[in-house]
Amino acid sequence: MLGEFLENVRKKRPLIHNITNRVTVNDCANMLLACGASPIMSDDIEEVEEITALCDGLNINIGTPGRRTLTSMLAAGKKANSLSHPTVLDPVGAGTSAFRTNAALDIMNSVHPSLIRGNISEIKALALGGASTHGVDAAVCDTVTEDTLEAALIFAADFAKKSSAIVAVTGAVDIVTDGTTAYCIFNGHPLMSRVCGTGCQLSAMSAAFIAANKENMLLAAAAAVCTMGICGEIAYSRLGPSDGTGSYRIYLTDAVSNIDGKTLDEKAKYKIF
Amino acid sequence: MLGEFLENVRKKRPLIHNITNRVTVNDCANMLLACGASPIMSDDIEEVEEITALCDGLNINIGTPGRRTLTSMLAAGKKANSLSHPTVLDPVGAGTSAFRTNAALDIMNSVHPSLIRGNISEIKALALGGASTHGVDAAVCDTVTEDTLEAALIFAADFAKKSSAIVAVTGAVDIVTDGTTAYCIFNGHPLMSRVCGTGCQLSAMSAAFIAANKENMLLAAAAAVCTMGICGEIAYSRLGPSDGTGSYRIYLTDAVSNIDGKTLDEKAKYKIF
Amino acid sequence: MLGEFLENVRKKRPLIHNITNRVTVNDCANMLLACGASPIMSDDIEEVEEITALCDGLNINIGTPGRRTLTSMLAAGKKANSLSHPTVLDPVGAGTSAFRTNAALDIMNSVHPSLIRGNISEIKALALGGASTHGVDAAVCDTVTEDTLEAALIFAADFAKKSSAIVAVTGAVDIVTDGTTAYCIFNGHPLMSRVCGTGCQLSAMSAAFIAANKENMLLAAAAAVCTMGICGEIAYSRLGPSDGTGSYRIYLTDAVSNIDGKTLDEKAKYKIF
Repeated sequence: MLGEFLENVRKKRPLIHNITNRVTVNDCANMLLACGASPIMSDDIEEVEEITALCDGLNINIGTPGRRTLTSMLAAGKKANSLSHPTVLDPVGAGTSAFRTNAALDIMNSVHPSLIRGNISEIKALALGGASTHGVDAAVCDTVTEDTLEAALIFAADFAKKSSAIVAVTGAVDIVTDGTTAYCIFNGHPLMSRVCGTGCQLSAMSAAFIAANKENMLLAAAAAVCTMGICGEIAYSRLGPSDGTGSYRIYLTDAVSNIDGKTLDEKAKYKIF
Repeated sequence: MLGEFLENVRKKRPLIHNITNRVTVNDCANMLLACGASPIMSDDIEEVEEITALCDGLNINIGTPGRRTLTSMLAAGKKANSLSHPTVLDPVGAGTSAFRTNAALDIMNSVHPSLIRGNISEIKALALGGASTHGVDAAVCDTVTEDTLEAALIFAADFAKKSSAIVAVTGAVDIVTDGTTAYCIFNGHPLMSRVCGTGCQLSAMSAAFIAANKENMLLAAAAAVCTMGICGEIAYSRLGPSDGTGSYRIYLTDAVSNIDGKTLDEKAKYKIF
Repeated sequence: MLGEFLENVRKKRPLIHNITNRVTVNDCANMLLACGASPIMSDDIEEVEEITALCDGLNINIGTPGRRTLTSMLAAGKKANSLSHPTVLDPVGAGTSAFRTNAALDIMNSVHPSLIRGNISEIKALALGGASTHGVDAAVCDTVTEDTLEAALIFAADFAKKSSAIVAVTGAVDIVTDGTTAYCIFNGHPLMSRVCGTGCQLSAMSAAFIAANKENMLLAAAAAVCTMGICGEIAYSRLGPSDGTGSYRIYLTDAVSNIDGKTLDEKAKYKIF
């Protein structure tokens, strides 16, 4: 069932405008191409509104925030809102500085993103206005596992209602919820957290999935999260004895570029609540 | 014959100054190293003139434009002109926003680049002052194929005369022309368009080829385009069943780092008009 | 003996704040993850002090300098000093422009880095206030080889005393010295210089090594340099006939992610002076 959401991305080739960080900008562009979408990266106030108007969706990622790009994010976000373009917010590192947390809150409140995707620490920082985080990884005590799943589900649903956004909390177990229905996704591999940017890539890919499936963004977001997790598993299965995180990163992109809807349906592991 | 132009790059190791976008800046640096050149990336007005004076050529790429870097591009370009350093302009995404189109036109008119390389949509945007484009890929209706080749040849030659630059229009078929002679190049593989930055990498590599072969920049540019296309073919031939666009991107750099003049001469497929 | 310094990185997972260049920022993040550390990239004045306070070490790299990031580097560096966090300065391209040389000198004098790592040309530019350089590679005449080792050792030790920093001069032979004791390291492979960013990656990794081994930063820095060199050898040994610099770059990260303390001890080749 999720497979058709992927097939729609490949068929419609949505053009995604990304205002993103300097660290993983290339990874995001390549992941969008791998899943069948088309990327454009642009963060200057002199063109972001015009660029986003040409596109099918907008992905905002605050991984290396600054006043200049924040202004562009807000302007592009409002333009995307006015055109009913699906929008994603990835609040990278929210909670690690007041500036980041406030930037993420400002975007959340001004842009009304269709989807907010982060790890549990980042989402907590948004929900609570501050939380303990360890760099841009989820703080260990905050990781969503099968043991802490129920509490996390309640938390994520509450935040989805409060923010009027679909919320994707990713980690050992992923949660995608609109506040009413929740998908708990059990795909993925721990090695993904040892490659920089897999979260950013998932956010970019999610923008493509919801842009190509506007009529059902909750399922589209769940399909994106499953796709990434399954590809993390496929990439892991290819590792030879000398391979490490460098090859794993490449195999992940390979897997996304090769996966089809049928494989997605066969390998997706999730429960609906 | 084209092989000697590549061998000159490997022999002379030209140092290329790049003022380029944030998305593919690392890819461009690695591609310059792969072809035998040496890269330096610098875009700050406080140093660009000094940096470009140390170099053998300048590559200007407007993929993530902004007022700050545009100022640096113009200053470095004029300095390069005054020193007779070969210069390349890659008008990434020209036609997608007024700011980009005007930035590209401004550089073209102020810097007088030795070579302008883009897809047909971007070159049209420069020639016509605006055109329909789809992100940073060539709009489908605008792709140069064998069927539309004659019209594209006439268009490219006209633009080369008008701009006094060598013009490289790359796509399914590539055209390299100075307005008098045109090379139509049939190397390459469609998968290249599913990797972010192959166009940017070709522009950077072209700067190295013309810098190492100043006495015949038309042939040098054609040699760069053939090299990239052939390497796209070699990379494709290496793909195993689990490989996708991630590995393809790596194999492309591998192929450029390994190709020699003899292989280039054997595999180059072009016609001269 | 050096192996335990690596094991400490894997055990303590130091969080490293990087204010670095746009070219290799992703490579640095992935190399930190590969060696067992955790990266955060942040260069905006509105958050750098807060971010660096959360971290265990700071890595400053001037590869694409600008007034905006220089201000952030100085502020973060002073904050790191006040918290006794180990700091690294990588003066990329010092000597190629007055702005870069002065930026590096300014950071060196204001921040008092724990470790300065560069090629011989960059270190000379700092020591002498200017030197002939060729892009961001060491000028050929300046390369440290076994023939020029003695002079380089005296130069590096003098500069270490003058700057009160550990100095790592990397090249064909690497020197790591605090002015009293010097490690000459013979690991590595020439192909490393054909991949963009191996120096930047080493600087980032060195920050992790000294942050996880604050009680003996000289040996920690030597261990980082040996680790990188050995991994360059391991990566080279994996190259197949079609592999080139693209795959080599990936294999290098693979090797760092896989190497353990025992392998480091077995393969380290150094002499102590």
